[in-house]
Amino acid sequence: MNQDYIIPNNWSVIEEGFDAERVKSSESLFSIGNGAMGQRANFEEHYSGETFQGSYIAGIYYPDKTKVGWWKNGYPEYFAKVLNAPNWIGIDIEINGENFDLAKCKSVSNFKRELNMKEGVYYRSFEAVLQNGMEISAKITRFLSLDIDELGLINYEITPLNGDAVIIFKPYVDAGVHNEDANWEEKFWEPLEVKYAENEGFVTARTFKTHFTATTFMQNSILLNGIAEKQNPSEVQVTSDKIQFSYEIRVGITETVSFRKLGGYTVSLNHENTQTAAQNVITEGLKIGYENLLENQKRAWSKIWEMSDITIDGDVKAQQGIRFNIFQLNQTYLGKDSRLNIGPKGFTGEKYGGSTYWDTEAYCIPFYMATKDQQVARNLLTYRYNQLDKAIENAGKLGFTNGAALYPMVTMNGEECHNEWEITFEEIHRNGAIAFAIFNYFRFTGDYSYIPEKGLEVLIGIARFWHQRATFSTHKDQFVILGVTGPNEYENNVNNNFYTNYLAKWCIDYTLEQIEKVEKEYASDHSRIMSKVNLDKGEMAQWKKVADKMYLPFSEEHDVYLQQDGFLDKELITVKDLDKSQRPINQKWSWDRILRSPYIKQADVLQGFYFFEDHFSKEQLEKHFDFYEPFTVHESSLSPCVHSIQASVLGRMEQAYTFYLRTSRLDLDDYNKEVEEGLHITSMAGTWMSIVEGFGGMRVKNETLHFEPRIPEQWTGYSFKINFRNQILQVSVKANETHFNLEGTKELTVFVNGKAVLVEPNTLVTV
Amino acid sequence: MNQDYIIPNNWSVIEEGFDAERVKSSESLFSIGNGAMGQRANFEEHYSGETFQGSYIAGIYYPDKTKVGWWKNGYPEYFAKVLNAPNWIGIDIEINGENFDLAKCKSVSNFKRELNMKEGVYYRSFEAVLQNGMEISAKITRFLSLDIDELGLINYEITPLNGDAVIIFKPYVDAGVHNEDANWEEKFWEPLEVKYAENEGFVTARTFKTHFTATTFMQNSILLNGIAEKQNPSEVQVTSDKIQFSYEIRVGITETVSFRKLGGYTVSLNHENTQTAAQNVITEGLKIGYENLLENQKRAWSKIWEMSDITIDGDVKAQQGIRFNIFQLNQTYLGKDSRLNIGPKGFTGEKYGGSTYWDTEAYCIPFYMATKDQQVARNLLTYRYNQLDKAIENAGKLGFTNGAALYPMVTMNGEECHNEWEITFEEIHRNGAIAFAIFNYFRFTGDYSYIPEKGLEVLIGIARFWHQRATFSTHKDQFVILGVTGPNEYENNVNNNFYTNYLAKWCIDYTLEQIEKVEKEYASDHSRIMSKVNLDKGEMAQWKKVADKMYLPFSEEHDVYLQQDGFLDKELITVKDLDKSQRPINQKWSWDRILRSPYIKQADVLQGFYFFEDHFSKEQLEKHFDFYEPFTVHESSLSPCVHSIQASVLGRMEQAYTFYLRTSRLDLDDYNKEVEEGLHITSMAGTWMSIVEGFGGMRVKNETLHFEPRIPEQWTGYSFKINFRNQILQVSVKANETHFNLEGTKELTVFVNGKAVLVEPNTLVTV
Repeated sequence: MNQDYIIPNNWSVIEEGFDAERVKSSESLFSIGNGAMGQRANFEEHYSGETFQGSYIAGIYYPDKTKVGWWKNGYPEYFAKVLNAPNWIGIDIEINGENFDLAKCKSVSNFKRELNMKEGVYYRSFEAVLQNGMEISAKITRFLSLDIDELGLINYEITPLNGDAVIIFKPYVDAGVHNEDANWEEKFWEPLEVKYAENEGFVTARTFKTHFTATTFMQNSILLNGIAEKQNPSEVQVTSDKIQFSYEIRVGITETVSFRKLGGYTVSLNHENTQTAAQNVITEGLKIGYENLLENQKRAWSKIWEMSDITIDGDVKAQQGIRFNIFQLNQTYLGKDSRLNIGPKGFTGEKYGGSTYWDTEAYCIPFYMATKDQQVARNLLTYRYNQLDKAIENAGKLGFTNGAALYPMVTMNGEECHNEWEITFEEIHRNGAIAFAIFNYFRFTGDYSYIPEKGLEVLIGIARFWHQRATFSTHKDQFVILGVTGPNEYENNVNNNFYTNYLAKWCIDYTLEQIEKVEKEYASDHSRIMSKVNLDKGEMAQWKKVADKMYLPFSEEHDVYLQQDGFLDKELITVKDLDKSQRPINQKWSWDRILRSPYIKQADVLQGFYFFEDHFSKEQLEKHFDFYEPFTVHESSLSPCVHSIQASVLGRMEQAYTFYLRTSRLDLDDYNKEVEEGLHITSMAGTWMSIVEGFGGMRVKNETLHFEPRIPEQWTGYSFKINFRNQILQVSVKANETHFNLEGTKELTVFVNGKAVLVEPNTLVTV
Repeated sequence: MNQDYIIPNNWSVIEEGFDAERVKSSESLFSIGNGAMGQRANFEEHYSGETFQGSYIAGIYYPDKTKVGWWKNGYPEYFAKVLNAPNWIGIDIEINGENFDLAKCKSVSNFKRELNMKEGVYYRSFEAVLQNGMEISAKITRFLSLDIDELGLINYEITPLNGDAVIIFKPYVDAGVHNEDANWEEKFWEPLEVKYAENEGFVTARTFKTHFTATTFMQNSILLNGIAEKQNPSEVQVTSDKIQFSYEIRVGITETVSFRKLGGYTVSLNHENTQTAAQNVITEGLKIGYENLLENQKRAWSKIWEMSDITIDGDVKAQQGIRFNIFQLNQTYLGKDSRLNIGPKGFTGEKYGGSTYWDTEAYCIPFYMATKDQQVARNLLTYRYNQLDKAIENAGKLGFTNGAALYPMVTMNGEECHNEWEITFEEIHRNGAIAFAIFNYFRFTGDYSYIPEKGLEVLIGIARFWHQRATFSTHKDQFVILGVTGPNEYENNVNNNFYTNYLAKWCIDYTLEQIEKVEKEYASDHSRIMSKVNLDKGEMAQWKKVADKMYLPFSEEHDVYLQQDGFLDKELITVKDLDKSQRPINQKWSWDRILRSPYIKQADVLQGFYFFEDHFSKEQLEKHFDFYEPFTVHESSLSPCVHSIQASVLGRMEQAYTFYLRTSRLDLDDYNKEVEEGLHITSMAGTWMSIVEGFGGMRVKNETLHFEPRIPEQWTGYSFKINFRNQILQVSVKANETHFNLEGTKELTVFVNGKAVLVEPNTLVTV
């Protein structure tokens, strides 16, 4: 834990007191988003202190020229970066001739930020004394509408406390922005047109190269003591990429002026004419009105919470943690658009470039599958189906042929967005997670249709990759997979990573099974696909050989599968015996030292045990957990959730709880000393898993739901809902009993600790 | 072989005919240097075609900001680059109002470049028809004086062929240059002052950050038909970093005008006041005069050749190759200054940054040791001694302690100039070559004094590194070395690279032996050193344990040492069976594919067998050669020489010859398709070894010279000289006999094929 200034609260993230040191951290933590756009918690008014400005539009990216020290064949020349979008929130403020700036006030008091997660609204308030002696209080409300997802709203209230004030509000939209992580400090937006009329301003700009056009717009109005003032800007300043209005108003002592700004983006992804579209958004926004939009916002979020909330009793920090995670996931991705995906930083930062990692398949899909309509998870699968051709191209660049597909490590549009050989070329296990998600989707939703329609082609491309990527070792008389990086990125270019080899074998076997099943049950799909991909029995027989003779490194001495061939040659000193001053090792040690150490960045063999839990006995799990957990430093956000789930399975509740806190409050408490750069969105779905699958013990076996409810001693109870095959089941766990509540019309048999329980709709069933 | 336009000639490199496509290649091949400065064969006159401009001053560098995709702890923030120096050669030329430019002439005929290696002079001549119809012939002579090594000379002769001409010569010096390989396209020189007087011009500039000051100067004169013209410039143009004079002269048809430019650099490395120094160089140059300087140049080179020439009879291409190699080595480094070293591209290009690789110790020292005064090799060793503190610091950055030293992969001033983790942090075998060179220096020169004076401290730092870098594998009950890159850079982050492990073990053993010897024979040095480095018996015992229990990977099945632990898991398809379209693999394959292939970039296990030939039997050598050579692609310039030597030892003369041609004509014939970027200087010393140690079979055993002369069937004979312990022995090999000729006063016993031969001074001895 690296910070603890966030005030525990069941429904809100709260900061009290102004501290310039915390501004960038809070800009991440108080970020808002509505699936289509997002906004870091930057101040509306000018702030001259340290800040990281970030506004983001879903699906808009820029292919930045790759920067490397030493070029390797196969690197992408350009790769897609999340793009800092034009600024729509800015409102410079002048009070009695002084530019208002929190960094330059005589004093700031009662400063408070509150991100009300129940409402989906961000509040900020404070009192300040300016250099000119003016005392004011301010209260700002900001939200990105779920109703109209191209629209954001700001209500900026100021009350002069010690005298009358002439206040000038100077709202602007500005496309002259840059990316924090630009490789070459270039600008990414080319301004096209600036337009305004009365209280409305529009800046249309286009991304270089990708040519996405976005109109960034604003509409302004003023209320004095709650009554609308009819007012046009007294001044308009226009440059090639910015428009700024000035509104001057005299506000008497203790009177309150509200400056309202509607703003947002309309983009060419969705509209032919973005300017007209922007005009329409304003018109619609004004028609509904600010107050109604605010009410609608609360209603829309309450609907999201209705389905996805998890309650935890008796532990406010744990409750705040899980809600923060669920809230951020929903701010990032709502599943409406199969062109979009879940970026590792969502709309809260830029780092990493690209938006889609294997995180989506391995961590996020279970959350979306269980808390949304099943179409949402299907959209996420379809995203990969739509990028299959690019994955085949990508594999081609690395020398693979015949339709073998290697999905990129990170991507926006299907092309690789990563350029470090040990990851880009070697962290190939990502391919396995994509296949696993197809299996997992069917297992959970029961919707097999995806496989003959789309999934099988993806599976075949992946199976072909594994077949070609394996090498026959004459020496071992088995197939080996050389030169890979597993989920544990603290080992590079290793041979026979257990997780990778196991997944490769499984992918081939699973694909062959699905081909057989589709042949039997969806004959026309089968022949369509086979002729499209040109696959014959001979090739399949070759695949099978690889799967059947796949080498899995195993230690007789320790009775565990080995993370990779060379693991036992390492000096096996556990994390417990590692001096604390040496951690986090990724900030303290040089890379070579990390690589030859036994320390594991994130669950690796255990990730395999998580995916394929039913392939192994609980004794095997225990043995592997006890062998690997002592070497795991969890310096990846994706690690503690898996260990939490497995500790739960093994009945080690204290450990499970510790891992749970670490995953759920990773950003709130800034465990990894990097929250300023943005939040860890994808691992938040892992937090959800650690409750539902860990404590709740939820599994799907033989098309049926199973639970093994467990409860940490810090809690008196917890509850969650899941949408299982279009029926919504609420599960509430107390110390000695579990309640089930089923919404719907059909009864459902679930298993609790192996015992069948019939749950009748709309009837509380207690076990 | 990628080009064959260089005309075979015993003493010259010759190009005939103007071809714009070859300009950059020839700019590298016709480079000149005098150990203190160097110059690519750029044209003096303006050339608007494709060119790579390069002028270099020994010891002057710039710390460029490191560029990487993803930062790893331990990378240097800045690293030293070879710096493109200000231009002193430029002479713009206007003929009857037209700017003369070979790229824009109506026609160019009889174009010829000749780099006369015997003389150390570069000639260029041509006839050209300008757009204005003027026909001229031109003959340009350029050399960098060995006499005054801060001085270069140009004689630019023009003869109008079809009418009178008004010719304006516009010589300049210009510090407004940039580096081809600058990371951020910044300029590296800050201009300080521009001065001129009569026919002399001076531009003083300073490198940013490193603050090396250089005065670049020129002095101009004109001769008409061989008679000096008294003339001052008609015009002087001055900017902040450039000065350019104009000299106008009317030249009648078939008259010849000679424009003479003296120029060069004086730098703050050598002078307090570089401007005064420049003035002095000019004064001295004028005093001696152009003709005498030219004669002196020929004499000085003849003196170099006297000692370092190798003759080959019956094979002009082979002769041209070896002389080109010897010539370039001498152009690059003459061994006068222990602050300097042998850059991988010498003064012929910029690529790679830094100047000193393990190439110096592994490949270059034998050449300089045998063809120069032994002080030269000692200077090269001293260079590393002087950088020991930095090597200890460098190891400290990677977590090593207690005086362990890791020399940088590449360096200029002792700091690391490389930033790719698998090389920078892992290609640690370089440390071993530095220790080996100390051993080799004593073996060859018999000068033990270097060890107690300086070498032992270096050896101790290196032994400490190996001790700390090894890991005890409980599993193997031996010490292992994990996560390294061997000389074969086509495998990264491997465990137990044979070469590295063997060298590490040897380094420790050798150091312990030297400590013992110094203790006995140089007691005061011993106690000085021991107290300085704070080394005790306990620590040495720890080292010894590592050396005694060092693991060396070995295959019982193949009866060979394995390149690394995982080698046998690879698909062992030989180069012969690799489709030619796939080569060079470093241009055709992605990095991961290269890594998991069995292909070897350069001698690796065999490099170890080369260093420690006497540790292994000839049968072992043969077995390893037969095992590894079929997988070796020789895509490093450093590879073929070692294979050539070993093929010779094994009596496989045809193969030895093929490797010899490849190493000696690597750049002339551009085997690696990269000669445009500069020459491969350090591997040229390997070419020398492939004759002396390969064909000649020269070895030092028990302080005595041994020969096993062999001769490729393409040759009728060859000869070389070596300075063995201050006696100079010429060895001439003919088909059936070997002649020895000893200069000096003491007789020398050498062994020929194991048989002792007494060679008396100044007496031809035939065996």
